[in-house]
Amino acid sequence: MLKVPPRGFLQNEFESRLSQIQALMYKDKIDVILLTTQVDIEYYTGFKTQFLQSPTRPWYVLLPLHGKPQAIIPIIGESGMRETWVDDVKTWSSPNPEDEGITLLTSSIKSLMIKHKTLGIPQGHESNLRMPISDYHRLIGNLCDYEIKDVTKILRYVRYVKSQAEIEKINYICQITSQGFKNLPYLLKEGETERQNCQRFKEHLLNLGVDDSPYLISGSGLDGYGSIIMGPSERILQKGDIFIIDTGSVFDSYFCDFDRNYAFGYASDVTKKAYETVFKATDAGFEACQVGNTTSDIFKAMNSIMQKGGALGNSVGRLGHGLGLQLTEWPSNTLSDNTPLEPGVVLTLEPGMEYIPGKEMVHEENVLITENGPVWLSQRADAELPIIK
Amino acid sequence: MLKVPPRGFLQNEFESRLSQIQALMYKDKIDVILLTTQVDIEYYTGFKTQFLQSPTRPWYVLLPLHGKPQAIIPIIGESGMRETWVDDVKTWSSPNPEDEGITLLTSSIKSLMIKHKTLGIPQGHESNLRMPISDYHRLIGNLCDYEIKDVTKILRYVRYVKSQAEIEKINYICQITSQGFKNLPYLLKEGETERQNCQRFKEHLLNLGVDDSPYLISGSGLDGYGSIIMGPSERILQKGDIFIIDTGSVFDSYFCDFDRNYAFGYASDVTKKAYETVFKATDAGFEACQVGNTTSDIFKAMNSIMQKGGALGNSVGRLGHGLGLQLTEWPSNTLSDNTPLEPGVVLTLEPGMEYIPGKEMVHEENVLITENGPVWLSQRADAELPIIK
Repeated sequence: MLKVPPRGFLQNEFESRLSQIQALMYKDKIDVILLTTQVDIEYYTGFKTQFLQSPTRPWYVLLPLHGKPQAIIPIIGESGMRETWVDDVKTWSSPNPEDEGITLLTSSIKSLMIKHKTLGIPQGHESNLRMPISDYHRLIGNLCDYEIKDVTKILRYVRYVKSQAEIEKINYICQITSQGFKNLPYLLKEGETERQNCQRFKEHLLNLGVDDSPYLISGSGLDGYGSIIMGPSERILQKGDIFIIDTGSVFDSYFCDFDRNYAFGYASDVTKKAYETVFKATDAGFEACQVGNTTSDIFKAMNSIMQKGGALGNSVGRLGHGLGLQLTEWPSNTLSDNTPLEPGVVLTLEPGMEYIPGKEMVHEENVLITENGPVWLSQRADAELPIIK
Repeated sequence: MLKVPPRGFLQNEFESRLSQIQALMYKDKIDVILLTTQVDIEYYTGFKTQFLQSPTRPWYVLLPLHGKPQAIIPIIGESGMRETWVDDVKTWSSPNPEDEGITLLTSSIKSLMIKHKTLGIPQGHESNLRMPISDYHRLIGNLCDYEIKDVTKILRYVRYVKSQAEIEKINYICQITSQGFKNLPYLLKEGETERQNCQRFKEHLLNLGVDDSPYLISGSGLDGYGSIIMGPSERILQKGDIFIIDTGSVFDSYFCDFDRNYAFGYASDVTKKAYETVFKATDAGFEACQVGNTTSDIFKAMNSIMQKGGALGNSVGRLGHGLGLQLTEWPSNTLSDNTPLEPGVVLTLEPGMEYIPGKEMVHEENVLITENGPVWLSQRADAELPIIK
């Protein structure tokens, strides 16, 4: 029986994250970083809530060059934030469309602009500012004597290398989701819709111990599917179908992200061959997951197998990505990404190819990079396309 | 047996949404509106995907003053978008950190800047721009000859009044979630954690037919709870506890949002009285849900009951809100909101009060405003605090 990892983190985990980002802030001459998204706030404070699904209230956390994170948040979150390691919690009564925390945020930032007069805000690729743009303009207007710097690169770099405690959570969600996929052939039913089959899988995953499956999609079609991001649909599964389920399930906020393919009754030789090609591409990607290599080496290793295997194209635009607190994190396995691999990095290997016009075949596994080579986190898919009889 | 509403919408639903926003654009002299969020994109195109959980790729939809919406999206979404009523689908190969669609988006916007040279972007309260802020600056730099206007108010107004088809979906999710809460007393177990109890409820809701319960939180404590946004926790439920579960479950992308309170074994008189006070406040709020009244009338009706009932305060900052494609939508039931109620509006009534320092009691129900007065969408909670024996 797989042991359930402890929930949350010890305080030294947060101290370590903070000291890493502060070292990079020191190098980049940044006094304070403004965080606005659920993921960034949870990563540095441990504040875990589903409540940011409500778009009404912005939430702010400041990372100063010295000292602990500071929270500037709506009163509704005060008691929760006080249970984290954060000591400095300022609140305002929200909703307040006239001043949704901006006055308080401005003065808090100004009081931390001690040395370089520089505020860091994530502005680059894959980043998002979770606040109304008019409030952002108002804030920047209040800070016109200061320099604003993009901190996308240093924020994503700290999150790139996972701690042992993070790896345990990702490994756990990968293991129970793998078990779910192992049982799935016994749950799938021809004559029912994609949605009905996916719902049964979702219930089964909950039963096995996932906290949630916020991402659970499917695709199907006679001898192949055409999209991997749109389902589950109301299409009824029938003999001759290829069916893919891809899930980002979570344990204690950490994601797995991998898929499995199944054939109902039978499959054509060309589809079976496409399955074997992406399976072999995954193996090649795995072999390339070595410290010293880059994400582009992983891409090339996988892409080469798929080119030889008759790939017509790939609509996904990359062959895997980072994984952790988000379903997809930086970096991307692409030809030009060139991010060096380091021990503690968790990636998805996601070779996908169009093999008949309009038909795609996509595999996905999750791996950990270590000093001693790669380790599978997900339990490897079958080497041959499983046929549901 | 409750009839399952049809999924998706007929094309005339999208035509109606578009003509409503275009009438408001005409009035405000706006050539084109830029949409970036999953909810706005789904509302105007019908494009439904879980994939925007991945932060890697921005997605753009333009609403021109005349003609259908236009999509400027990563290639991975092309086949899905082509199945909607949108004809004009432009794509780029993504991820591409060098130019994540901005060149294509710029030229698409420019070609629609025909009359007023004005681009509408939602910038105000409760809005969010789902794109990197550096890309936003790049876009605005490309469009420096044009005026940018905030369209928060017209976008939220169109979504405010629900169609019959939308109301059917919201009613359906409210009905099955009500059934789930009716069964919940038989599922709750003393001696197990908040999380275990919540997971059992989540599985039960899936079994009853919800698509998902993306928001499912809980709070508990001896004779009262202190927060309604942080759980489920690992706290073990015991005799004398008050336990709240609040869920935003969805059917076909539409949310319910209401909660229920339970006592384990017994409850004190002051807690029972607080329950009855917020129950009566809900009734008073319901009576105020009349066309011609405003959200502030609802607030006052509920607040008056709670003041008389000994309320010490309220950390939520409002007594309910709009509901639909999001867990919480504009408007808010506050003293100063003053939004006029109209037939077809769906609101939550959410009276909450601190009744002992550190202890809150929060009720929530979902209602529809009609010409003939309010209609309950959720099945009313018990008038007295249910005791689990």
